[in-house]
Amino acid sequence: MLELLSENRSFGGLHRRYRHPSSELNGPATLAVYLPPQALAGERVPALYWLSGLTCTDENVMQKGGAHRLAAELGLALVAPDTSPRGAEVPTDPEGGWDLGQGAGFYVDATQAPWDRHYRMHSYVVEELPALLEAELPLAPARSISGHSMGGHGALVAALRHPGRYRSVSAFAPICHPAACPWGRKAFGAYLGPDPRAWAGWDATLLIPDAAERLPLLVDQGSADPFLDTQLRPADLAAAAEAAGHPLQLRLQEGYDHSYFFIASFIDDHLRHHAAALRAPG
Amino acid sequence: MLELLSENRSFGGLHRRYRHPSSELNGPATLAVYLPPQALAGERVPALYWLSGLTCTDENVMQKGGAHRLAAELGLALVAPDTSPRGAEVPTDPEGGWDLGQGAGFYVDATQAPWDRHYRMHSYVVEELPALLEAELPLAPARSISGHSMGGHGALVAALRHPGRYRSVSAFAPICHPAACPWGRKAFGAYLGPDPRAWAGWDATLLIPDAAERLPLLVDQGSADPFLDTQLRPADLAAAAEAAGHPLQLRLQEGYDHSYFFIASFIDDHLRHHAAALRAPG
Repeated sequence: MLELLSENRSFGGLHRRYRHPSSELNGPATLAVYLPPQALAGERVPALYWLSGLTCTDENVMQKGGAHRLAAELGLALVAPDTSPRGAEVPTDPEGGWDLGQGAGFYVDATQAPWDRHYRMHSYVVEELPALLEAELPLAPARSISGHSMGGHGALVAALRHPGRYRSVSAFAPICHPAACPWGRKAFGAYLGPDPRAWAGWDATLLIPDAAERLPLLVDQGSADPFLDTQLRPADLAAAAEAAGHPLQLRLQEGYDHSYFFIASFIDDHLRHHAAALRAPG
Repeated sequence: MLELLSENRSFGGLHRRYRHPSSELNGPATLAVYLPPQALAGERVPALYWLSGLTCTDENVMQKGGAHRLAAELGLALVAPDTSPRGAEVPTDPEGGWDLGQGAGFYVDATQAPWDRHYRMHSYVVEELPALLEAELPLAPARSISGHSMGGHGALVAALRHPGRYRSVSAFAPICHPAACPWGRKAFGAYLGPDPRAWAGWDATLLIPDAAERLPLLVDQGSADPFLDTQLRPADLAAAAEAAGHPLQLRLQEGYDHSYFFIASFIDDHLRHHAAALRAPG
């Protein structure tokens, strides 16, 4: 099922890009996996899923995230899916924007035509992809999830919707309250329809009050991020967490922006956070 | 003189891109500098110059090299020039290749028309750029040099031609003997003319026998690098070093290729090598 596209040795492990047919996405999907040295030595290793932001592919975090070094040391696999379905027959933004359609799947399961034929990134990331990878690669069924911006939103929502599925969750500059920001409203309006009541199940700030599991949330946010107040709205998440008594560690990182320089600067903290949960007795 | 184009906080320091008018390149030049936290706190820090390979710009190593983390810890600035002059009036390869002209300056001072009006990357990197940066930024006049592929060649040649100028030198997968490989013959033939006698001063393997300073060379080379035998020829460098008694540590890294995954995997070793020399009493 997994077709190997390329392979690079990295920190004693292997960075691999794969393609495979996806039933959720109704077409081919591309992704990258970093297998640490422990996996090459025969161990089944736990996996950290990384969801990227708008316009990204699997390549951004693998090339710019600086995560391989410590993942190799900690024995963590890294899994980086694409940010949407792709292909000539996959719909794109009719307005030509980069914030809807290909590269902007928002990690939801679309219910509206024409999006619903391919845009099922949530079920792809949460169900189909782990099942495939754990069947074909030396990955243990111990998973954590993180991501950046749109992908930080995706990670928080995946963990909040599926109690027990992830050992830990974190996010960098997540879109915390998509139902209340321009990016989220545009995407949710298209994928989920105009009624905001259909959006609540896909919004971390709105999911927190009813979360069945109090999995602690680790969130890093740069203070110089140009999207902080308009699109990301971490204060909304913090208010919801406080009201619900949901554990949240929100760290405002002074002077950092929205780039991968910010992510690389703090990725080690997140890897250690996830490794502690993934390596604990299951 | 230095015009700031962009700035990102990274590991407590700053990644900055600058443009400035270059007399050697006879036009504008773009570069990146990583200033570690120590420089922001008022210290004048030593600098590691990084020369990139064919088709690259300053962005490759800064985004994919994984060097900021340890540079911040060691208090090293990183300087990444472009790989050639750029601009509409700067000549390019008449055959349309990516191995001559813009993105492929080969760190020589061209003597042949039309290249000689702009292609003076050697003097730019060795003379003009350090003088400018040490005048305008908190950089100490303590320099080391490294690079990748074409830039590894550039680093070795810069150090071998200028005894005393660099505290240390290293390279990743350098073009060790450009006078004897297709990339080097094409570029040197254009920039320096068809007579190979004009090439000897720009070829690390040919410079070693007469080197006035026995600065140790640290070279990492991946065993799975597709360019190893045809273009890079580290065995030629090793033979010259052995014959001349020039100290060379050539490490063949099993399974690694020519990518930045290879560089990131071993950049820490190189940073420590340079920091030891740069931080030693001058």
